[in-house]
Amino acid sequence: MRIALGVEYDGAPFKGWQSQVGVDTVQDSLEIALAKLANHFVRTHAAGRTDTGVHALMQVVHFDTSTSRPMTAWVRGVNAHLPLGVRVLWAVEVSMDFHARFSAEARSYQYLLHHHAIASAVLAGKVGWYHAPLDVAAMQEAACYLLGEHDFSAFRAADCQAKSPIKLMHQAHLKKVADTIIFAFSANAFLHHQVRNMVGALVYIGKGNYPPSFMQTLLEAKDRTISPPTFSPAGLYLIGVKYASHWGLPETQRELNLFATTD
Amino acid sequence: MRIALGVEYDGAPFKGWQSQVGVDTVQDSLEIALAKLANHFVRTHAAGRTDTGVHALMQVVHFDTSTSRPMTAWVRGVNAHLPLGVRVLWAVEVSMDFHARFSAEARSYQYLLHHHAIASAVLAGKVGWYHAPLDVAAMQEAACYLLGEHDFSAFRAADCQAKSPIKLMHQAHLKKVADTIIFAFSANAFLHHQVRNMVGALVYIGKGNYPPSFMQTLLEAKDRTISPPTFSPAGLYLIGVKYASHWGLPETQRELNLFATTD
Repeated sequence: MRIALGVEYDGAPFKGWQSQVGVDTVQDSLEIALAKLANHFVRTHAAGRTDTGVHALMQVVHFDTSTSRPMTAWVRGVNAHLPLGVRVLWAVEVSMDFHARFSAEARSYQYLLHHHAIASAVLAGKVGWYHAPLDVAAMQEAACYLLGEHDFSAFRAADCQAKSPIKLMHQAHLKKVADTIIFAFSANAFLHHQVRNMVGALVYIGKGNYPPSFMQTLLEAKDRTISPPTFSPAGLYLIGVKYASHWGLPETQRELNLFATTD
Repeated sequence: MRIALGVEYDGAPFKGWQSQVGVDTVQDSLEIALAKLANHFVRTHAAGRTDTGVHALMQVVHFDTSTSRPMTAWVRGVNAHLPLGVRVLWAVEVSMDFHARFSAEARSYQYLLHHHAIASAVLAGKVGWYHAPLDVAAMQEAACYLLGEHDFSAFRAADCQAKSPIKLMHQAHLKKVADTIIFAFSANAFLHHQVRNMVGALVYIGKGNYPPSFMQTLLEAKDRTISPPTFSPAGLYLIGVKYASHWGLPETQRELNLFATTD
């Protein structure tokens, strides 16, 4: 049978999602824990292969097993074998033609940027940080250029393995809540480092290095070398994956708020 | 001259605030960093001596130095010598009769309780956790019994060094924001483990073990042994210290929000 899981993880201690020899990855941790319940080797497939240090509030994964267990065992039993920084949120049986990656219609990411003169001690590792004044309205205006279908080569890491740089962006907005700027992006798919590079460009626009229309210039130039630098992985969260309702999955979208206010 | 600092720290890696031989404490980290700027040994005094694993969003500290430096050096220069989990937020010169501990009129703490069937991977170490249903209205009703002057011996750790168990509680409330219950307490002073023990009692009332009036029973019994267990330090934050305005301190009160929502 095929089982889908909703998974949350803190990316800080891991070299990303994808299994690699000799380093700790989220996939390895999860497959080891699942094998203890399944009593056989388990291969998992994830909706989004998050990078080193990137978190997931909602990753969706599937695997196949011949072992029959109640769905609660695939949650609580697996959690008992996982490090505290990885938690299975839910488990459901799905049809054999469901695929966590290929059935996904869209992915959503949040980037949390702590915007304060001093970096946060309490939120270190959970947020990016920027210290100088930012024009949030100019950043929102710039983000609107990202909506729709574009060639996102300007925001693509050199080692990106995607077949095409053309993606369809459904959502690109940001809001300032106390001293945190929360960026939200949804697209059918994302290129390697795309969100962190878009955040870098938006911050450069926000601090006044470029006008909002520079985002259009970057999209048209399709040239990573003229694009502003990549932001830290610490603030990046995979928060949702969208599937057609006929697959019968539980909630696959969440939102994270981390902010401090001063009286 | 005497200098006051606002300090934020992540308590997880530390054996509490107070300097001890052979273990890492926040006070030791701060005094080592201050000595590098002062060029002499520095002794710090803090408003609240937080316990192992307890965080501070706003701790207030003072120290004396004969070294004259711009106030920005006591912020940025000191931060350059501190671990990322400890940050100086501000520095101001104060009169020699100011004392961070003895001049403080009140302390405020928050307790963040992640209330969800599954513990949070992303917020591990930053929040306490409780998985079963809770009657938040009953908990709020119970918290009201804590307001005013009481003998808080029922919530006092065995090794507490306070001279008197009688304290004046100014604020005791809680609110549920998405899947986090945020408890807020302010009092002239707190006993050792008092907040974590009060949270333990409120959770036992919330899950229906006792009626809200059990809080009154506990206060009257003054007996720690009949009181519910101590909650984890991971969710506890010192968030503010109140001083008379004539001391001329900057903001000494903050509030932290950490919560995930599901669409």
